[in-house]
Amino acid sequence: MAETQAAAASAATNPANIHSMHTRTAGELRRENIGEEVTLTGWVWRRRDHGGLIFCDLRDRTGMTQCTFDPEHAGGEAFHIAETMRPEWPILVHGTVIARDEETVNAKLPTGEIEVLVDRAEVLGRSKTPPFQIEDRIETAEDTRLRYRYLDLRRPEMAHRIQLRSDFTFAIRSALHNRAFTEVETPALFKSTPEGARDFIVPSRLQPGSFYALPQSPQLLKQLLMVGGVERYYQVAKCFRDEDLRADRQPEFTQVDIEMSFVTQDDVMGALEDVLADAFAQVGVEMPTPLRRISYWDAMDTYGTDKPDTRYGMHLIDLTDVFKGSAFKVFSSAANTEGHVVKALNAKGAGTWPRAQIDKLAKVAETFGAKGLAWIAFREDGSMNSPIVKFFSDEEMAELRRRCDVEPGDLVMFAAGPRLASDEILGGMRCHMADALDVPREGHDFLWVVDFPLFHWDEERKAYAAEHQPFTQPVEADIERLESDPLSVGSRTYDFVMDGFEAGGGGMRIHDPELQLRILEMLGFTEERAKEQFGFLMEALTFGAPPMGGFALGLDRVCMLLAGCDSIRDVMAFPKTSSGSDLMSAAPSEVSMAQLKEVGLRIE
Amino acid sequence: MAETQAAAASAATNPANIHSMHTRTAGELRRENIGEEVTLTGWVWRRRDHGGLIFCDLRDRTGMTQCTFDPEHAGGEAFHIAETMRPEWPILVHGTVIARDEETVNAKLPTGEIEVLVDRAEVLGRSKTPPFQIEDRIETAEDTRLRYRYLDLRRPEMAHRIQLRSDFTFAIRSALHNRAFTEVETPALFKSTPEGARDFIVPSRLQPGSFYALPQSPQLLKQLLMVGGVERYYQVAKCFRDEDLRADRQPEFTQVDIEMSFVTQDDVMGALEDVLADAFAQVGVEMPTPLRRISYWDAMDTYGTDKPDTRYGMHLIDLTDVFKGSAFKVFSSAANTEGHVVKALNAKGAGTWPRAQIDKLAKVAETFGAKGLAWIAFREDGSMNSPIVKFFSDEEMAELRRRCDVEPGDLVMFAAGPRLASDEILGGMRCHMADALDVPREGHDFLWVVDFPLFHWDEERKAYAAEHQPFTQPVEADIERLESDPLSVGSRTYDFVMDGFEAGGGGMRIHDPELQLRILEMLGFTEERAKEQFGFLMEALTFGAPPMGGFALGLDRVCMLLAGCDSIRDVMAFPKTSSGSDLMSAAPSEVSMAQLKEVGLRIE
Repeated sequence: MAETQAAAASAATNPANIHSMHTRTAGELRRENIGEEVTLTGWVWRRRDHGGLIFCDLRDRTGMTQCTFDPEHAGGEAFHIAETMRPEWPILVHGTVIARDEETVNAKLPTGEIEVLVDRAEVLGRSKTPPFQIEDRIETAEDTRLRYRYLDLRRPEMAHRIQLRSDFTFAIRSALHNRAFTEVETPALFKSTPEGARDFIVPSRLQPGSFYALPQSPQLLKQLLMVGGVERYYQVAKCFRDEDLRADRQPEFTQVDIEMSFVTQDDVMGALEDVLADAFAQVGVEMPTPLRRISYWDAMDTYGTDKPDTRYGMHLIDLTDVFKGSAFKVFSSAANTEGHVVKALNAKGAGTWPRAQIDKLAKVAETFGAKGLAWIAFREDGSMNSPIVKFFSDEEMAELRRRCDVEPGDLVMFAAGPRLASDEILGGMRCHMADALDVPREGHDFLWVVDFPLFHWDEERKAYAAEHQPFTQPVEADIERLESDPLSVGSRTYDFVMDGFEAGGGGMRIHDPELQLRILEMLGFTEERAKEQFGFLMEALTFGAPPMGGFALGLDRVCMLLAGCDSIRDVMAFPKTSSGSDLMSAAPSEVSMAQLKEVGLRIE
Repeated sequence: MAETQAAAASAATNPANIHSMHTRTAGELRRENIGEEVTLTGWVWRRRDHGGLIFCDLRDRTGMTQCTFDPEHAGGEAFHIAETMRPEWPILVHGTVIARDEETVNAKLPTGEIEVLVDRAEVLGRSKTPPFQIEDRIETAEDTRLRYRYLDLRRPEMAHRIQLRSDFTFAIRSALHNRAFTEVETPALFKSTPEGARDFIVPSRLQPGSFYALPQSPQLLKQLLMVGGVERYYQVAKCFRDEDLRADRQPEFTQVDIEMSFVTQDDVMGALEDVLADAFAQVGVEMPTPLRRISYWDAMDTYGTDKPDTRYGMHLIDLTDVFKGSAFKVFSSAANTEGHVVKALNAKGAGTWPRAQIDKLAKVAETFGAKGLAWIAFREDGSMNSPIVKFFSDEEMAELRRRCDVEPGDLVMFAAGPRLASDEILGGMRCHMADALDVPREGHDFLWVVDFPLFHWDEERKAYAAEHQPFTQPVEADIERLESDPLSVGSRTYDFVMDGFEAGGGGMRIHDPELQLRILEMLGFTEERAKEQFGFLMEALTFGAPPMGGFALGLDRVCMLLAGCDSIRDVMAFPKTSSGSDLMSAAPSEVSMAQLKEVGLRIE
C-alpha cells in the first residue's frame, strides 16, 4: 500500500501525465508500480496471441509496456476489443500493473519486469497497414521514409532524435537567457544581400516587380541590433540558401545566432565557451573549458583541414627539407619551389593492405584535388612495396622513417606541391584512412580554430573573396597591407570545431564605415554598388557603432553529432530531398495563373 | 571596505558584467556601491559643462549613470577626452562611484544618488547627429523611426519592449518545456495550402515553374506531428500572410504554436491555462485560473463581439419583446421578424454630450455596419433629447428605463435588425464609447470564448466558410446536421481573449479522414481538389491518427498588450509599413535579370 502511494505520487510529478487521457507513460512503469491502476495511451506495436491470451505492446513516445488481455478478466470485454486491434491503431487501456512471470521478464527493456492486465480498452482510431515497419534500423529507402514522414517519426530512434534536438535547443536558449542575452526576432522577408550563396526571392504583390529575399543569415540585422544598443542578442534563426543540394545540405537550416557589443574577442569566446559548455552539459555532454585554440595555419599544417578531428593523431609530417636534393624530381622540384611543400601521412595498419586496395587510394586522393598518389607500404615482414621508393637515397629513407615513426604495417602517403593544396589532399586522406581503418574516436572533440586569413583568392572569379564574410574585422596591425598584400591580412575570427565538423563560426565585426567600404572594394564592389547593397549598414555605422562580435552555431549539425547520425536530415522533422522536394506534400508545386498575375510574373 | 566587497560580489552575480568591457551596467549602481571602482560602457546621452566640470549621462540598455569629468582629477586626461565627446558616441569610462551632493540627488532616477568620478575614458566610436532625439515620448514620424530603426531601438522605451518580448517568449517556452512539450521546427518552404489569406510564394530554381509557399501557420504540419507520435508539440513559429496591410497587420508575424494528442478538450484547455498562467507570472502578470468560459453566443449577446473586454460592463440589453407592439415601425418590424432583435447599449456619461457630438456617432456606427443610429440622451435636468422617443409609449419607455437602468446623463443607443449584425454594431459602439468616455480598464482581462459555430455564411463568396479553419472537429451530436443545417453545427473551439483582443485560438482537430473530406466538401471543395490540396493530410489520417487538439497564441499581440502599446509594430524589432516595405534596407527591391532567369520567370 505504501509502495502504491509512493508510485502514485511520482505519477503526479511527471508533467507528461497531467492534462492527458493517460495517467502514466508507456516508458515509465517499473517493479515499484506493481499494484497501481493505470491508464495508458499509444499505438498498438506488436501483438501476439498466446495460450488463449492476447499480448499487445503499447508504444508511446517514451517507450513501451506489454498489455495483457485475458478473456476471463473483467468480463472479457477488453479481450474482445483487443481481438479487433491491428498494428498502429491508437488505443487507450486501463488496468493494473502486475509482475511478469519469472520466465517472461525482459531484462533488456526498462519496463521488462512488469505488464498491465487490462480491464478496459478503447479504440481511438484505425490504421491501414503502414508501408514500412515502425522499428529502428529499418532498410527502407529514405524516399519512402520521407514520403510517410509522419510514420517514420513514430520509430523510437527518430522520436529520440527529435526530442534530443528539442532538449538541446532549449538548453542553449536557457544558457543564453541566463547570461543576459536578449532574444530578438529578425524578419524573414528582407532585402536581397547575397552572401556567397543564391537568395530565395519572394515576389511582392503590393509592389509588383519587387522582391524580398529570405535571409541567408541575420548577419546584417544583428549588427544593426548592436548599433541599436541591444548589447547581447540571440536568436534560433531559420536561414535559407538556394544552393545545389549535393552533400548534406538543406535549402533551409537553423543556426543559433549570437552577437555581443562592448566586447573584446576574448570576451566573446569566453562567453561562448560558458554558453556551449552549459548547453552541452544539460544534454549530458561534458565540454571542458577553456577550449584549446589552434590557429588556422597550424590546423592546416598539422591536420590538412581547418576543421580537424583531434580525437586521433595521424598528423601531417613536413618532409620538404628532406627532399631538397632528391633524385625523385616530383619531390625535389616541390621542395625547391617557394610556397610548395613535400608532406607525408602515416596510416598505421594500411601497410598490410593488398596492392589493389592501396592502388584505389589514388582515386580517393583525386577527390581532394590530387593528380595521383605516391605511397610506401611497409610490410609486416620488413619489406617495402612502393612505386617510388627506388628513387630515394638511404639518407632520405632513414629521415623519412624517423620523422614518420615508421613501423611494419604502416602506409605512408605523400603530397608534393603548393602548401594549401598539399595539406588539403593529405587532410582528406587522413579522414578517409581514419574511417577505412576504423580508428577509434571516443566521446566528442571540441576546439577553436582561430586567426583565419581575411581573404582567399577565388580562382574561378579571379578575385579576392572573404574567407568568412565581408563584415569581419581585420587584424589591426595588418590593415596597412589591405591593398598591397591582401592575402597576408589576418582576421579576428574563430570557428568552433566539433568532431571534425565546422559546427559554428564567428568573428569580430567592422564598426568603422570607411574600413567597411575599403573591404567591400577589395572584394570587387564599386563604391556605387557597395552603397546600393550595403548602404544601410554603412550609414548605421556612422551613428556610433560600438565594438562588436558574434557567432553562429549550426544547430542541425550539432544535433546530428549529438545524436550520432550521419545526416542532418535525421534531426529535422520534415527535410527536403536533394532536388529540394518535400515528398510528403509534393512541394514545390504549380500555382494558379491568378496567383502569378497578382505578383506580376509570368513563367518563361 | 566590507560594503565594497559585498558590492563587488554582487557585480559578479550580474551575468551581464561577465565577459564584457564593463564591470557594471549603467542601471545598477546605488548608494551601496559608493567607493567601488567601476568600468562602464555605453553611449553619451546628455552632456553638460558646469562649473568647470563636464557631466555626461552614460546610457546603456539597463539605464544611465552620471559621469563626472574633473580637469583636476587623475591628471585631467579623461577631462580632455570628454571635451571631444558628442551625443551618441559609444564610450568606456573607468572611475570611482561617489555620492552626489545633497542638492544634485535625483530621486526619480534609480542611480540618482551616485555619480562616477572618471579617471580614464576611451572613445570607442563616433556618431553623426541623429535625425531624432534618443528619448521616450518623441513626436517623430513613424516612417523616420523605421528608416533609422537602429537609433529608435536605443530609446529606453523601445529597449524595454524588446526585452519584455524576449522575457515573455522565454517564459512561455520554459512553461511548455517543463510540461513535457517537445519543440519541433517545421519548414518555412512548404506547399501552398491557402487558409483564407493569400500565400507568399517562393519560386524554385531546381524545379523552374514550381513554387513553395511560406506557411500561413504550421497547422497541417503540427497535425502530421501528432500522427507522428510527438504527443506534445510547440514552436514559436513565423507565419506569413500576404494581405492588404490595413489596420495593425504585418506580412510576417509570430505565433506560439501548440498541439497535443491523446487529449480531451478539457485537457488541452487545462494545459494551456497552466502554461499561460506560468508564463505571465514570469513577467509579473497574474492570470487567475481556471479562466472564465463564455460561449460564443453569450459573448455576442452580451458584448456584441467574440472578443469582449470584460473589465467594464456596458452590456448589450435585449428589448425585442418590449417593442413587439411599438408605434416605431423600425423597432416593431425587427421585433416581429424571426432572427431579428432590438437591442440597446447605455453609455453612462455621454447623455450630457452636445447634440453635434452625439450626431457624429452615427458615422461611427456605420463603420460597424449600421445604416444609422437611434439614440436617447437623458439630460442631467431630467429632460430627454432624441429623434425617436416621440414614437414610444409610456409603457415602452418605462420598461426601457428599467432594463437599461437609466439615470440622468445616460446615452442609450439602439440597434434593430438581424441578431448578429445588431450585436456587432452595438459591440463596436461599446468599445468606441469606452474609449471616448475613458472608462477605466485596470490590469489585464483574460477569458475563454468557447463553442463557436463550425461555419458561417460568406456573403461575398456565396458559400459556407470555416469559422476557425477547415480542420476543426464539429460537436459530435451536430455531425448529423452537417449537410442539412450547417449553420447550426457547433465546433470544439476556444479563443483566448485578453483585454478585448483575440490573443489566441484553438480547437480539437478532425482525426477521421472521411469526416475531413465531408467538411472540405461543405466548404466548396470538389473531392478532386480536396485531395490535390489536402490529400497528404487525409492520407496521414488513415494511418492511426490519435485524438488531438491545439492552440496558437499571437505573440506579437500579447507582447503589445503586456507592454501597453497600441501597435504590434512597437514590439517588433524591424516591422514593415502598410505597403510591406522595410524602410531601412529598402526591401522589397528589384532583382537582377539573371536571378529571374534562374527561376524561369519574367516580369509582366
